[in-house]
Amino acid sequence: MAGIAGPSFFIGQDGDGLISFGSGQPDLPPPKEIFRNLADERLFKYGLIQGERRLREALSKEYPDASPENFVITNGASEALDLTMRVLAKAPGPQKILLCRPYYYSYPYNVRFAGMEPVYTDLKEGRINLADFRKKIGRVKAVLINSPSNPTGRIEAVATLKEIEKICKKLGVWVISDEVYKDLIYERENYLLKGPHVITINSFSKTYSMCGLRIGYLWTPQRDFVQKIINMKVHTSMNTNILGQEMALKAIHAPESYVRRQVKIWRARRDLIYGDLIRLGFKLWRPEGAFYVLPKIRNSGRAVNEFYYKYKVIVYDGEWFGAPGHIRLSYALDEKKIEEGLKRIAKFLKGKERWL
Amino acid sequence: MAGIAGPSFFIGQDGDGLISFGSGQPDLPPPKEIFRNLADERLFKYGLIQGERRLREALSKEYPDASPENFVITNGASEALDLTMRVLAKAPGPQKILLCRPYYYSYPYNVRFAGMEPVYTDLKEGRINLADFRKKIGRVKAVLINSPSNPTGRIEAVATLKEIEKICKKLGVWVISDEVYKDLIYERENYLLKGPHVITINSFSKTYSMCGLRIGYLWTPQRDFVQKIINMKVHTSMNTNILGQEMALKAIHAPESYVRRQVKIWRARRDLIYGDLIRLGFKLWRPEGAFYVLPKIRNSGRAVNEFYYKYKVIVYDGEWFGAPGHIRLSYALDEKKIEEGLKRIAKFLKGKERWL
Repeated sequence: MAGIAGPSFFIGQDGDGLISFGSGQPDLPPPKEIFRNLADERLFKYGLIQGERRLREALSKEYPDASPENFVITNGASEALDLTMRVLAKAPGPQKILLCRPYYYSYPYNVRFAGMEPVYTDLKEGRINLADFRKKIGRVKAVLINSPSNPTGRIEAVATLKEIEKICKKLGVWVISDEVYKDLIYERENYLLKGPHVITINSFSKTYSMCGLRIGYLWTPQRDFVQKIINMKVHTSMNTNILGQEMALKAIHAPESYVRRQVKIWRARRDLIYGDLIRLGFKLWRPEGAFYVLPKIRNSGRAVNEFYYKYKVIVYDGEWFGAPGHIRLSYALDEKKIEEGLKRIAKFLKGKERWL
Repeated sequence: MAGIAGPSFFIGQDGDGLISFGSGQPDLPPPKEIFRNLADERLFKYGLIQGERRLREALSKEYPDASPENFVITNGASEALDLTMRVLAKAPGPQKILLCRPYYYSYPYNVRFAGMEPVYTDLKEGRINLADFRKKIGRVKAVLINSPSNPTGRIEAVATLKEIEKICKKLGVWVISDEVYKDLIYERENYLLKGPHVITINSFSKTYSMCGLRIGYLWTPQRDFVQKIINMKVHTSMNTNILGQEMALKAIHAPESYVRRQVKIWRARRDLIYGDLIRLGFKLWRPEGAFYVLPKIRNSGRAVNEFYYKYKVIVYDGEWFGAPGHIRLSYALDEKKIEEGLKRIAKFLKGKERWL
């Protein structure tokens, strides 16, 4: 029984009777439009480090007051985050970044890999605690906001987001807004964080089911910051793959009904898994966006091991996300599989009700 | 007349009567086989961070004693280098990396971005000076070898490469061997550096004319080092784009004649540009691999500006490669364009013969 140290243990695992609530990867197909006319030699040449102009133009129309010059297309949101941290690390000011806990598991690594130190504000019922936020925000270079959130599935109140904008603007603290789930939201329209020092990070992976293509981006009103990102990316990875950018452009132009249809499916799955977990006795927050639930369970590490080795069910340990005593389940899989997976979890729970 | 600060000024520029000896990008098409059967949903899912197993298997057959477990597929050779430097920076030992000068322009940045310091050994007639190499190698964590070389177009003698292997093995110094031009060599069979601490970096960009797809890789006999690269990449960019990996796999299986035909074209162009530059009075080394020449010219910065603004010819300043008083010309363009470009250079030279 091999130890399970983190999510990467599971990446790429499927088939063979396994039910995976692990990876945050949509099982739905990408828009069919993206497959058209790919055999074009232009798509195999070096491109602008900043990203293809037409793609940046299309993206700039999705954000008020944005211009194509202020975008950089990256190898997924991961590279956008990595480059952002590395460029921020070179700027004067405190070498600390404020993270909301529970957090996406890469965040503390991204901060540390850039030579900075993560500082945490603990969420209260999956939402930012403004009192604690105010105490800590003055001592950091940037705060990372992720709403809708992985792993909590929660969204922040618009009033809170506006208050964060105000505080950070006043203090000159950068806001990194990881909005990769902005289109997967069930409770209200999404609210895009804005302000002079906001760096928005997004990706085509979740909205368009294109995780494997690794097309993400960042944008900020600070043109100087954009230039620093380009000046680094020219040496660390050059242009983001052109063929993927072309497919992302085609995805943006897919009929709007594509995204609406996806959200409808996600909402139905959300209702299914949330209802069933409550019936099983789990305590958890109702997800409002993204496609994750984070129910409580004692001995979460042992549970993750047993689920995998005895019941062939992949779930992630909350500990990897700064939430020990929880497990994270992604519901990016079809309803039949969700039901089968929950059946196995119910079996596991027999006689372990005190774990809940 | 905008200042020209580095190669990125020119990236993505073409058309409009411009002749570009700038970017090191093959103008030849990629193998046609890579375009087949791309509309497969599997290609849009997250994949192994380490890279697709079938691609690593195919690659491992190109190197003696290599196994698929020892490869990582990256976003071009650039990411392979960036990750290598970042992982090396965390290891104990001196925080210095030995570079051969002239060097590929990203190398010093890659070293510094990782928080280390570049140290230089100056090439003698475009070849490593073993006496100077021996003096400096004991004080560094790694040496970066690039043969065939960008920007010199030179290859190292096999005896020199074997001596470097011996010295580094004895001292426990890492050898990073950037072999992106290994298939584009005109004078002899290529020699692949090997040894317990060799990290080989390569790419599909040059051999298969797939620059824009950004598929590169690294491999080393040190499994532990491979794991550290994966542990970092999972947070900094995740898997390399799957569609590009699939196309790389198809490229490997393209008929062998594809690469042979390319090399024949490169050799003819090499002969053309080398002969013409000599006739124009330039002093330069005869290229033995890759597709670059590095002729001497006084006031290289001013020459680069005038070539571009007055003659619509792009060449790179040797200074960007640690070779002031030189210009770098890539001959990755067709013979007619090479001839037209050289005609313009001849015009520029009228009355400036003392610049040579």
